[in-house]
Amino acid sequence: MINPVRLITAKRDGQALPADALKALIDAYTSGDVPDYQMSAFLMAAFLQGMDAQETAALTDAMLYSGSVLDLSATPGIKVDKHSTGGVGDKVSLILAPLVAACGVPVPMISGRSLGHSGGTLDKLESIPGLRTDLSTAAYKAQIEALGLVMIGQTREIAPADRKLYALRDVTATVEFIPFIAASIMSKKLAEGIDALVLDVKAGRGAFMKTETEARRLAETLVGIGERFGKPTVAWMTCMDVPLGRAVGNWPEVEESIQCLQGADVPDLMEVTLALAGEMVHLGGQAASPEEGRHKAQEALDSGKAFDMFVKLVEAQHGDTAVLYDPASRPGAVPAGDVRAPDHAEGYVADLDALALGLAAVGLGAGRRTKEDVVDPTAGITLLKKPGDPIAPGDVLATVYTTNTAEVASSSATIQAAYTFSDTPPSETPMLLDRYTKDGWMSRVKRDTRQSRLT
Amino acid sequence: MINPVRLITAKRDGQALPADALKALIDAYTSGDVPDYQMSAFLMAAFLQGMDAQETAALTDAMLYSGSVLDLSATPGIKVDKHSTGGVGDKVSLILAPLVAACGVPVPMISGRSLGHSGGTLDKLESIPGLRTDLSTAAYKAQIEALGLVMIGQTREIAPADRKLYALRDVTATVEFIPFIAASIMSKKLAEGIDALVLDVKAGRGAFMKTETEARRLAETLVGIGERFGKPTVAWMTCMDVPLGRAVGNWPEVEESIQCLQGADVPDLMEVTLALAGEMVHLGGQAASPEEGRHKAQEALDSGKAFDMFVKLVEAQHGDTAVLYDPASRPGAVPAGDVRAPDHAEGYVADLDALALGLAAVGLGAGRRTKEDVVDPTAGITLLKKPGDPIAPGDVLATVYTTNTAEVASSSATIQAAYTFSDTPPSETPMLLDRYTKDGWMSRVKRDTRQSRLT
Repeated sequence: MINPVRLITAKRDGQALPADALKALIDAYTSGDVPDYQMSAFLMAAFLQGMDAQETAALTDAMLYSGSVLDLSATPGIKVDKHSTGGVGDKVSLILAPLVAACGVPVPMISGRSLGHSGGTLDKLESIPGLRTDLSTAAYKAQIEALGLVMIGQTREIAPADRKLYALRDVTATVEFIPFIAASIMSKKLAEGIDALVLDVKAGRGAFMKTETEARRLAETLVGIGERFGKPTVAWMTCMDVPLGRAVGNWPEVEESIQCLQGADVPDLMEVTLALAGEMVHLGGQAASPEEGRHKAQEALDSGKAFDMFVKLVEAQHGDTAVLYDPASRPGAVPAGDVRAPDHAEGYVADLDALALGLAAVGLGAGRRTKEDVVDPTAGITLLKKPGDPIAPGDVLATVYTTNTAEVASSSATIQAAYTFSDTPPSETPMLLDRYTKDGWMSRVKRDTRQSRLT
Repeated sequence: MINPVRLITAKRDGQALPADALKALIDAYTSGDVPDYQMSAFLMAAFLQGMDAQETAALTDAMLYSGSVLDLSATPGIKVDKHSTGGVGDKVSLILAPLVAACGVPVPMISGRSLGHSGGTLDKLESIPGLRTDLSTAAYKAQIEALGLVMIGQTREIAPADRKLYALRDVTATVEFIPFIAASIMSKKLAEGIDALVLDVKAGRGAFMKTETEARRLAETLVGIGERFGKPTVAWMTCMDVPLGRAVGNWPEVEESIQCLQGADVPDLMEVTLALAGEMVHLGGQAASPEEGRHKAQEALDSGKAFDMFVKLVEAQHGDTAVLYDPASRPGAVPAGDVRAPDHAEGYVADLDALALGLAAVGLGAGRRTKEDVVDPTAGITLLKKPGDPIAPGDVLATVYTTNTAEVASSSATIQAAYTFSDTPPSETPMLLDRYTKDGWMSRVKRDTRQSRLT
């Protein structure tokens, strides 16, 4: 039996813990032998004293093997998944997963729910009437084998230590710590049975990582863990200052995803989606380079194969496919009001604060303030104006959707205040900030020519 | 209702918390509204980020008013108590309390039990057959009024937040933090109903504070709190490298205390006791200076009044007074063996490690390894040789007492190894290292002329 006080003391005093000690601590916590009050003291000590790369890998390993690691070897091909650290309007997974699967790369994806200002893929999928994300492990395996695509929620068998630790971190102010964030993400992803992984590490005011410095450290940590576990891992750092695309909210984002899968070009959203798709198709062995992978993905969009794959996914998971062909037929999406440009809005939209907008969407019912909140599947915001668009007083900036009409006024005010205006068009900011692999960061030369809004 | 996550976050990020926030947190923890796992995260954050003097005072205040503050105003005079941070062979309270009370200063003392290598006054008192320390608040007040002296254990009403926090700190590696140590001590002492306080802050390898630097910080913190609460407070920093006196263990220490109250001079023990007594008699208004207080205390020893007061205390608390006059009549004290000087012991005893000796006494049954352990009241060690004594191979260094004969061999080996020897007599080290009041530390001139064993 381990001595938890000794391990807490060692971490408190700044020592690096050996892998077997971390494993014993996590195992004892998962089984209930170490109580929450000792684990929270350990978490805070680690938060303030740090954990090195070896400790972070050992923590990930302990959390990973606290549950089952799924075996997808029955499915031929290189299984590749993508994880995003989360943002506002981030519906990339909904487009990306069927797109990559349509290129012949099996995509087994286990996703989470929204919490705070950022959305969750599960909530978005479940806004499709009838769609189920609570598949058993057997059904998960059967579907990846049959279809090459499956999108579910975290099962009981997957990383139980992470579930317990995540709940504890949430109430003990130990969430925002890169080794914990990385171990939480990677223990779940590695348990899926993947062979390679692509990461979208978002940086900016609408992201979990507010600065590029933090986002870089997280990307490096995540890729480091993936490679230690023998899974080729590529991370893109992308911009999350402004909402991605023009829809925020569960069903509104599904609608926008359907449009994109049918060929609509929403530039910022598709720039990110196609970059990640290129990496996944390349890692999945269906292209000789990420560039070639991107071309293949574009072809899968143009040919309609990507949309067809999405329809098959929804069908396999018991969702209503009719609404995919006619989104307006989905009941419930009621416009609750328009947000208009104020009198001083003259010239161009200069900026739009993703965090403020994400919080407004939560207020309308699209997200959760606490884990117990129930989301309104059709609540949300569609953005008629984004940075760079010309503007005049009284123009409609956004339309809000909600069944909670009491929230409309304050959310609308928040949305209006999230916009700023200028006489001249703002300079364009790229979505793709940098790329990290085991070989390091992409050349900085290109990036240094532009102004970063971050820092 | 407070938001505990916000307070943990603020402390984690190094902010100083306002008094009302600390009070709300402690109140909510005491009532059970804030669970252990949040409090332990807060404790670790404070441990690593620090707490300033205002926060420490606010924490003390919150812990103090988590329970009753006893009102002793019915007893005339200035009530003065003493607290020691604990050491090996530290029976000072047993001599000091009746001595000061015999000088006309009421002494209301609430003490603790032993844990680890250092003894506890309660265990020592309870080794007197029949003596009770679990007096009710009413009995406590009645006895201080009638006798001017009472010595009990912490009641349920006194600082319940401290009891709960102490248990949590013990299992979360957050014990050794001066603001917590100070708030714990002072919240209990201030609840006793005292008007002034004298502190014995021990420094050295047998003390909780191993270095003078730590002991100084603790003394400054304790005096600062006392003065903030309007209670004149004086701290002596005393040496705890070597056991105090020649007895270690509960009943053995009572015997030595009886001898000292009857006029025996155990130099190191009485040097500390009389210095503290002088301060208490002075603070209690019965002498114009600590020096005069010391003289009065010496008179109370010489006249027999101090011993008489001890007898009255034992009588009032239902103890057997016959054993006070004839300590050898107390049943149970069985010499279990002698520890002899090894062959290389030639010349003088150079040094004696208090920590090693304290741990040997615990092994013999005189103390507790865990809170659940039961002490053997007559177990312990009497030291026949101390540093400076001449020595030859085979001389008896110490006699051990225990009913657990299985422990005798290993304890004897530990005791022998705690001694070192030298050809020449060791230089004398003073017991009284320095004195701290609200006016600062005593002049360092005197101290700098000697070699300190500490540092």
